[in-house]
Amino acid sequence: MLITFEGLDGSGKSTQVKLLKKHLIKENFDVLALREPGGVPIAEDIRELLLESKNDINAITELLLFSASRSELIKTLIIPALEAQTIVILDRFYDSTVAYQGYGRKLNLDHIDLINKIASFNIKPDITFYLDILPEDSLLRKFSEKSLPLSFNDNNLPLDRMEKSGLDFYRNVRMGYKEILNNEPERVHELDALKKPSNIHKDVLKKLIPILNASKKTTF
Amino acid sequence: MLITFEGLDGSGKSTQVKLLKKHLIKENFDVLALREPGGVPIAEDIRELLLESKNDINAITELLLFSASRSELIKTLIIPALEAQTIVILDRFYDSTVAYQGYGRKLNLDHIDLINKIASFNIKPDITFYLDILPEDSLLRKFSEKSLPLSFNDNNLPLDRMEKSGLDFYRNVRMGYKEILNNEPERVHELDALKKPSNIHKDVLKKLIPILNASKKTTF
Repeated sequence: MLITFEGLDGSGKSTQVKLLKKHLIKENFDVLALREPGGVPIAEDIRELLLESKNDINAITELLLFSASRSELIKTLIIPALEAQTIVILDRFYDSTVAYQGYGRKLNLDHIDLINKIASFNIKPDITFYLDILPEDSLLRKFSEKSLPLSFNDNNLPLDRMEKSGLDFYRNVRMGYKEILNNEPERVHELDALKKPSNIHKDVLKKLIPILNASKKTTF
Repeated sequence: MLITFEGLDGSGKSTQVKLLKKHLIKENFDVLALREPGGVPIAEDIRELLLESKNDINAITELLLFSASRSELIKTLIIPALEAQTIVILDRFYDSTVAYQGYGRKLNLDHIDLINKIASFNIKPDITFYLDILPEDSLLRKFSEKSLPLSFNDNNLPLDRMEKSGLDFYRNVRMGYKEILNNEPERVHELDALKKPSNIHKDVLKKLIPILNASKKTTF
């Protein structure tokens, strides 16, 4: 089973991944939690290029690098884990590419779709949780996390390359997530990122437990 | 005008690129000669990942990384140069991806075709010179260049990651080049890599001069 968490940075994805992992381990499931981009050495190298590069990277290169990193993670860790009946929880997967490179950077959505399929070896999430947050709130969280003054225009702020993309970009990314939600309501579930983490976690479990019980019954 | 050179490593591409560049500069053309992967900072970083990595890289990741590097080179240097009427000479372009990742690594050729189109922003070479060499001869040259003993099985040889792929791989790559040649005889011209470099250069000019003269006439 593949569970993915999506949303803008600062929406609380990694907190939810941690809470869910803890819960599933307590329930005696085998669990593997990973973040994208990264997770294996070559993918971590690509992550560094993508986030820390001082050089401009055009949107197509960005798309191909994120996909290269994903492809390596899937082939090396995710496919073997899924084959071993391990539950895999991912902090970001290909919906991020649709939202960020498709809606954010305005690349051709059909191209993204095909590259997503190629890079993910046709692996699809069984369930996806989208943590909805306004870009303004997401940036507020980022800035307070890093104790930064509240200004979005200073190029010297200690933000990574993606975080410097500006408010309009993130508004388009959020619109992208809403579209994905709209197109695949069976798979993707929206959660309110401004709720308390423990309450969001309860919402996650409410959706997940019936599915887990069903899969337990079919496995044993 | 975009001129590309293709062929196995050790086929003498870079020598031909140098000779052609020198000739065209003498003839008062503006010329830009570049190698793939590489040419701009982020692409050089990707080149290092691809060639020097000690980690395994799966074929899809390899395809996406080569394409990411190409995309950056094209957007940053090649498109602006072509727009300024500069002749661009490339040591490798997307035919390498078809030959190496398609025929060598056996990836889906339709997928490669589409990724090539996306990564190259639909830029196509006007003319391509394929330097044909047997993989055995290509490896012989490589080994004598690096003063190595003649053995293909030792994993500790100071070869880069691609060079370690073995003889069967290079036989398939050569077969790929022959297919490209077969499919696009108007664009791709085969040259015998075992001839003297000065004679190969003459063969290149023989094909190129009529095209250059025609383009001169249309430009002025």
